[in-house]
Amino acid sequence: MNKIPNVVVVGIGAVGVEMIRCLKQRKFPFAKLSIFARTARDTDIDGDTYSIQAIDPKGFEGIDIALFAGTEGEKGAAVTYADEAIKRGAVVIDNGADFRLKDEVPLVVPEVNKESIRGHKGLIANPNCTTIQMVVALAQIQKRFKLEQIILTSFQATSGAGKKASQRLWDETSEIAEANRGKNLDALDKNASGDSDIFAGQIAFNVIPKIGGFSRDNYTSEELKTVDETHKIFADPSIKITSTCVRVPVFTSHCEAVYFKTKKDASLEDISRALKESEGVVFYEDSQSFALPLEAEGKDEVFVGRLRRDSFNKSSFWLWCVSDNLRKGAALNAVQIAENLLVL
Amino acid sequence: MNKIPNVVVVGIGAVGVEMIRCLKQRKFPFAKLSIFARTARDTDIDGDTYSIQAIDPKGFEGIDIALFAGTEGEKGAAVTYADEAIKRGAVVIDNGADFRLKDEVPLVVPEVNKESIRGHKGLIANPNCTTIQMVVALAQIQKRFKLEQIILTSFQATSGAGKKASQRLWDETSEIAEANRGKNLDALDKNASGDSDIFAGQIAFNVIPKIGGFSRDNYTSEELKTVDETHKIFADPSIKITSTCVRVPVFTSHCEAVYFKTKKDASLEDISRALKESEGVVFYEDSQSFALPLEAEGKDEVFVGRLRRDSFNKSSFWLWCVSDNLRKGAALNAVQIAENLLVL
Repeated sequence: MNKIPNVVVVGIGAVGVEMIRCLKQRKFPFAKLSIFARTARDTDIDGDTYSIQAIDPKGFEGIDIALFAGTEGEKGAAVTYADEAIKRGAVVIDNGADFRLKDEVPLVVPEVNKESIRGHKGLIANPNCTTIQMVVALAQIQKRFKLEQIILTSFQATSGAGKKASQRLWDETSEIAEANRGKNLDALDKNASGDSDIFAGQIAFNVIPKIGGFSRDNYTSEELKTVDETHKIFADPSIKITSTCVRVPVFTSHCEAVYFKTKKDASLEDISRALKESEGVVFYEDSQSFALPLEAEGKDEVFVGRLRRDSFNKSSFWLWCVSDNLRKGAALNAVQIAENLLVL
Repeated sequence: MNKIPNVVVVGIGAVGVEMIRCLKQRKFPFAKLSIFARTARDTDIDGDTYSIQAIDPKGFEGIDIALFAGTEGEKGAAVTYADEAIKRGAVVIDNGADFRLKDEVPLVVPEVNKESIRGHKGLIANPNCTTIQMVVALAQIQKRFKLEQIILTSFQATSGAGKKASQRLWDETSEIAEANRGKNLDALDKNASGDSDIFAGQIAFNVIPKIGGFSRDNYTSEELKTVDETHKIFADPSIKITSTCVRVPVFTSHCEAVYFKTKKDASLEDISRALKESEGVVFYEDSQSFALPLEAEGKDEVFVGRLRRDSFNKSSFWLWCVSDNLRKGAALNAVQIAENLLVL
């Protein structure tokens, strides 16, 4: 891109706000930064006031890069507006799930497959948060040893389901704390009132093994994203991937217990070296160390720790992987794609 | 045992209280029920007052069954007092971890291997909570198809680390709720004050992938229990077991994402039938259903749902398993062992 671009962020929920933050923090060179959302209003982000414009096809005139914040689970604004933006000359980077698996749409994690950006036809997709942090952690391992199998169990933060979902965790927690003030531990009533319209049950002091709707083989849509998107990003459908995705009462940062087996023989030292030399990864060489979600919040990297070998199976390992789902898992990755567009 | 026994519960923390509850609820036939703890005092359990006696070797005179509540992670009272009880004629059922792997000590989950009780030499061990619910879920599958591999990721409640640990979760949560009352979600400070002396970090709104100390191959003691105890209970050291054990901000009930592969070919229907016919298991035949920890609290069964096949590997499956870690995972299992002793 041979000009300083006009940039728009479409949608200003949890991911949209984080996109604005990433653009500012990374000093992304824009001529003009706009925000489009359903209704026009002013909003405050980190002390700065931004004017939000009501979204309209004509608004995309003169826009060079449109970052669609999207939302997991429901149709993103890109379904309605991506074509409008593209035909007016913008490149769309879409965080929504709607176009990720289309053949003509590159699905990009810059640390892994930024070269695929070149082939874009106006739309580039940002992968699912759970997938992104896993492929960043596994990229060098895949490159050096090829993955035979991935068995993933995730611990996912509420913000992955949007602001309303985090509000629900906070409301439930506040209600329980208030109702039980000064009570003895044995006398606590840990049930929040009302039915959750967001999760498949109470999320405060609970964990819920269902993210998204059910689909093939009774896997959830979230679980299938970790399969299908990983295959596409690694351009390797031979990897046997299976996962269980679980919501936990954490606001931000997803954790993943990743078990994997390589096709080529690999020792613990081989894997350790690959992780040490991985882009975007903070690797804890001490296998007894690890990151916690609260620590990863607001950070850009994927934190990988607790690397261990399976004592009974060769070339098989565990790692513990944590990353801010709103940043590397969504907003930051989209902004990194935009940065790569600038130098194409 | 050809008499109505005198019973003592040793230790009156989270598990000891639950032992008293199970004995009462199940109408366990005792002549006398005593409670021993470090110091003499009265305690109230579900509205009844119990006199606790200070523990002393002579106190075991006339005791027929001694249930040691034990604690995971530190040496249980059984290390000091089990011999004193046994030499005075008691059978000790120990919930602590100290004797579980000794050859002469049966390690018993009645639904799986109650026949091993017969060989006891005065001491019978209760397995670790995480192991118990997994072997109950897998028992019929092991019996019918033999397990080749188990890959476990656990979501463990704070009460597994004792009352103090649950108090810590409550204190941290209450402090954060109080400090942020009326605040906007974006302005929350989610950090509790002080360093945790119980967990490897803050547990409120966080998850911690370390339970117990580190041991061989950099697995934690909790993770190795799921390997070694499962081998012993199934009397089958050929099963390739590996696990990642994680603490979550839930008070009671552990959840487990269990991936397993059978030696003999098995279809989804085969596994479903085995689970349906499993003792102690509530099986959700609908693969889209599952239990949540809050629902399992106070219940006796192991709840198994979300049974799915691995789409890429034959005879390989996932299940989601939830159980009250203080009941089936500890107190109830010990009381069930005692019930089996009565009819020997």
